[in-house]
Amino acid sequence: MPNLMPMPARVKLGQGQFIVSQSFSVGVSGSGGPRVKRAVERFLGNLSRQTGMPIPAGLGNPSQAALLVHVEQASKEIPQLGEDESYTLTVTPSLAKLNARTTLGALRGLETFLQMVSIRPEGFAVPAVNIEDSPRFPWRGLLIDVSRHFMPLEVIKRNLDGMAAVKLNVLHWHLADNQGFRVESRVFPKLQEMGSDERYYTQSNVRDVIQYAAERGIRVIPEFDMPGHTTAWFVGYPELASAPGPYQIERQWGIFDPTMDPTREETYRFLDQFIGEMAGLFPDAYFHIGGDEVNGKQWDANPQIQRFKRSHGMKSNDDLQAYFNQRVLALVRKHGKIMVGWDEILHPDLPKEIVVQSWRGQQSLANAARQGYRGILSHGYYLDLMQPASDHYAVDPMGNGAADLSLQERARILGGEACMWSEYVSPETVDSRIWPRMAAIAERLWSSPETPDTDSMYRRMNAVSERLDWRGLEHRSNYTPMLDRLAGSGGVEALRALADVVEPVKEYERAEFGSYTSATPLNRLVDAARPESQTAREFARMVAAVVSGQADENTRIKVRAMLTLWRGNHARLLPQLENSALLKEVEPLSQDLAMLGTVGLQALDYLEAGKRVPDDWRAQQLALIEQAKKPRAALLLMVAAPVQKLVEASEGDSRRP
Amino acid sequence: MPNLMPMPARVKLGQGQFIVSQSFSVGVSGSGGPRVKRAVERFLGNLSRQTGMPIPAGLGNPSQAALLVHVEQASKEIPQLGEDESYTLTVTPSLAKLNARTTLGALRGLETFLQMVSIRPEGFAVPAVNIEDSPRFPWRGLLIDVSRHFMPLEVIKRNLDGMAAVKLNVLHWHLADNQGFRVESRVFPKLQEMGSDERYYTQSNVRDVIQYAAERGIRVIPEFDMPGHTTAWFVGYPELASAPGPYQIERQWGIFDPTMDPTREETYRFLDQFIGEMAGLFPDAYFHIGGDEVNGKQWDANPQIQRFKRSHGMKSNDDLQAYFNQRVLALVRKHGKIMVGWDEILHPDLPKEIVVQSWRGQQSLANAARQGYRGILSHGYYLDLMQPASDHYAVDPMGNGAADLSLQERARILGGEACMWSEYVSPETVDSRIWPRMAAIAERLWSSPETPDTDSMYRRMNAVSERLDWRGLEHRSNYTPMLDRLAGSGGVEALRALADVVEPVKEYERAEFGSYTSATPLNRLVDAARPESQTAREFARMVAAVVSGQADENTRIKVRAMLTLWRGNHARLLPQLENSALLKEVEPLSQDLAMLGTVGLQALDYLEAGKRVPDDWRAQQLALIEQAKKPRAALLLMVAAPVQKLVEASEGDSRRP
Repeated sequence: MPNLMPMPARVKLGQGQFIVSQSFSVGVSGSGGPRVKRAVERFLGNLSRQTGMPIPAGLGNPSQAALLVHVEQASKEIPQLGEDESYTLTVTPSLAKLNARTTLGALRGLETFLQMVSIRPEGFAVPAVNIEDSPRFPWRGLLIDVSRHFMPLEVIKRNLDGMAAVKLNVLHWHLADNQGFRVESRVFPKLQEMGSDERYYTQSNVRDVIQYAAERGIRVIPEFDMPGHTTAWFVGYPELASAPGPYQIERQWGIFDPTMDPTREETYRFLDQFIGEMAGLFPDAYFHIGGDEVNGKQWDANPQIQRFKRSHGMKSNDDLQAYFNQRVLALVRKHGKIMVGWDEILHPDLPKEIVVQSWRGQQSLANAARQGYRGILSHGYYLDLMQPASDHYAVDPMGNGAADLSLQERARILGGEACMWSEYVSPETVDSRIWPRMAAIAERLWSSPETPDTDSMYRRMNAVSERLDWRGLEHRSNYTPMLDRLAGSGGVEALRALADVVEPVKEYERAEFGSYTSATPLNRLVDAARPESQTAREFARMVAAVVSGQADENTRIKVRAMLTLWRGNHARLLPQLENSALLKEVEPLSQDLAMLGTVGLQALDYLEAGKRVPDDWRAQQLALIEQAKKPRAALLLMVAAPVQKLVEASEGDSRRP
Repeated sequence: MPNLMPMPARVKLGQGQFIVSQSFSVGVSGSGGPRVKRAVERFLGNLSRQTGMPIPAGLGNPSQAALLVHVEQASKEIPQLGEDESYTLTVTPSLAKLNARTTLGALRGLETFLQMVSIRPEGFAVPAVNIEDSPRFPWRGLLIDVSRHFMPLEVIKRNLDGMAAVKLNVLHWHLADNQGFRVESRVFPKLQEMGSDERYYTQSNVRDVIQYAAERGIRVIPEFDMPGHTTAWFVGYPELASAPGPYQIERQWGIFDPTMDPTREETYRFLDQFIGEMAGLFPDAYFHIGGDEVNGKQWDANPQIQRFKRSHGMKSNDDLQAYFNQRVLALVRKHGKIMVGWDEILHPDLPKEIVVQSWRGQQSLANAARQGYRGILSHGYYLDLMQPASDHYAVDPMGNGAADLSLQERARILGGEACMWSEYVSPETVDSRIWPRMAAIAERLWSSPETPDTDSMYRRMNAVSERLDWRGLEHRSNYTPMLDRLAGSGGVEALRALADVVEPVKEYERAEFGSYTSATPLNRLVDAARPESQTAREFARMVAAVVSGQADENTRIKVRAMLTLWRGNHARLLPQLENSALLKEVEPLSQDLAMLGTVGLQALDYLEAGKRVPDDWRAQQLALIEQAKKPRAALLLMVAAPVQKLVEASEGDSRRP
């Protein structure tokens, strides 16, 4: 079975395989338009990189082509919500056929084909197979926050390439927040001139990204968060705020007071022009106005705003924000767009056309659906929280609260978006925070809810992860250079042994390990470490086998080898720890890893000898392990828990399952 | 001592160190012009990437700057041969000062500063130091052949970044050969239209590269090899050839017959216009006309050419080529350039202004110098021959034949150029063939001939190699993806263990391992393997210590661990070998590596037990090892020789040094 991700709706393996040789060529028929030709050229380039074989670019003669792509009709130049993305892909030992109703479907099918190409005894090959595929949800997105840390154009582009590889179709571009206004406005140039530290996208950059995304079947939705999260706007235009300026770009993280003044007509005149300009720049039908986390402090402190509330019979700041949203909605509509916002915008006064993005959870989404609103889920898909892929994978937009919805209500749940909030990521580290976990979420949004088991998911995700190297993603390639930087000269083997078994602290805990601003270097071990340690996961799996008595010889040898490596690692790493200002903080973790190696080996000896460990030894070791589980340097030692299992198991047979 | 390469002329370490903090800034004074400002901005970007610290871009106030750069006078916008590149760099714990006579000197000094920044217990720091530096040779180049395999613009640019990092100052762009004509001619557009497979640089690309190089103090010298190596010209312009066409782009490697017709005036009218066009495009004063490897077959077979020779009293084809060179020289001169060519062009009729590039050796270079010609050395610096860095490092342009030259004659030896001929490299693999060995050659050309020992060279070269990741070079980052491709899914640990100890066959042997054309995939283990195995070199060093009885405990443990890894590696790798069409060919190497592990461990046991091995065992193992030294799959198992040493040493004490 090929390592497909997202898993297609129906996959039926046949007999034999199709050999992808250097004479591989693609023929196109039907009415897919010039985008199909360009997609095939990209496909051939990717196939060439992936196999290392020069393969002639350009379309082949359909009568002699190895892969025939037939497209019934051209998709719109700019992708739209709900377009048909289905395709069928039939591969026999002599021919491959990709049929799609639309250009978009062909794009998706070409990616499926690429995922199936792998090295075999006979050469690069695709198994004979019959695939029918279409997405479960029409809205499958990734939010990239470019305000808290600006992400240069090439970061956006390479991530669009990654998105295309796993059939995502929405880039949600979080363009403005307290820490930076990141797009050029020609109507209000002080927005970027004063609000961006000169780190912003020109309108030409934006058009470039939209075109790049459209070629890959990806919509681009801009978010201009308002009325809160707007400090960066106020640096150039303090008159928009609910309190007098001057304002400065925010350098720290959190929820801040500055909020637009929803009571002044000037605010709406400004927004009318601004939304008009941006609506012209961004062709997608949807326009995100944020709307989250308004703390109301500026409103409460402003007598004029208080008067306004009273005179309009508003009881709360929520009412005032609802009024603001109504006014903004009218402007968004006026400029031909459909409004999207976070949970907070939901208010009975708003028409049913709007779309709610839920950071609060499925219940919130289900409630919206019951009230007639469409929605997308982001709760559970926050990549910045450093959760394992399996956690994200377990979150279903239709889960929890959605269970009781009617069919009609369920249809209002459009899909979901992973969120890459950028407080703790830089252009250097962002790829490793998005990938490969994004691929698991992409599968959740594309594939049937009856998805394969977690082991299958991880196996396929890791295969996809390797392939993304060929698309220019840096989540794997930046690991060694970042370790080099930490270690100085002298090799990184010992540091890698430690780095391989730690993970950044989860949820919002990182804030407790330092005082952060947008200028804080993200060059520590926590930044190099992967969100999810593959080594630790494999070690835990092997330990579970050992403990249950199911482990084969090979597994026991591997467990012992890993423990032995760790036992000696601190001594090897110590000279570098002592010589690097950046590594000092991980010395306790390194010590604990050596301890875990020692303790694990002792426990293994007891286990293999079938001896019962002395109770006092056991208690002592468990106490040490408990200490080793504590976060240090914003890192967690992920092999403490499995070593604990070994020690616990060494108590005797009674503890074995 | 910081890991500097090339080693500066004078380095005097002081007391203490200068801490590079986030508030690091650079002030500029003097008359270096706008290029200094741009160089400082690039420097700050590199410093930021290297340290992972956001550092504000732009020039600082000189009175508060951490590093003061003073430049006496602006270099020319386009660098020229022989410009002053000297600088002094003084670092104290409180301040760093870089003084240079010219902009170029400042560029070189900034690179020296970057090489000294490393992580210390106190943070990123530069040791207090006093450096006076200037190059030994004024011509320090890299030839990149873009004809046999085209190298896209980004490959050229990232290699220019690498060149700047090690103070090279000439990109020799081998733009045309039998296998492709790679630059746009507007006067003769069929050159690129019919001779390049649509893989060529537009004139705008060329100007971009020249500008990019000039910013980094690097000259760009084009080479249009003639009258041989010209098949690609003849596809569009067969009338230039000495035999009737039609011609096709050559797809294979070797010396081919097609040669320009030196007897027809039309040839010179064409070349006049062509050289005129290219002389305008390439601003450097030097213009390379190749001139090598004319086999004369077309000339011998052409009665009209034979008549011409007779009527002009020419005795040989060499005379005819000398005539051609004279004619071309006149054209090169007419268009304001100085002619450069390979050894073959040397002929007493040519004026002394020309420069000879020697692929034949120092003797040839010395002879030219004696005759009054200037020259550069490339013999010994062919990167495609896969020799160890130490071999290149040992080659001195003033070595061998140059020893007896007078001072005046010695001054005619301008330096050298490494050559990256591209028969067996692709854009994917070319970086790993150039780097890091190029850095060792760069040191040979910049630094004093009394250079440090080989261990020092390797230590510093490896440090430079790591740093080049931050410049975008891919010689390190492409290793794992290439192994992934070979292995398919399932991890690359076992394959890496093998790949780490093999090297591609040397010199021109690769041609014996396959039938190659320009379309042959370069995706085998020989392409992923590094030209020089660091693991094998270190293993050999440790074995030497063991054999001499000088090894410490740690070294003995490491040697045993490596042998143990290899002994078990074939069993681990076998499933992938059997499942990959690309890996089948390395099965014998993998088996032999396991054998070497087994034999090495046995020899080590004998050695450590102080026992004499049985003679028949020893003879048997040595025979096996001898077999293991044979190249297979175009690869050499580099640990066979050190294991042989172990077995030989196990004979008894008499063999120990």
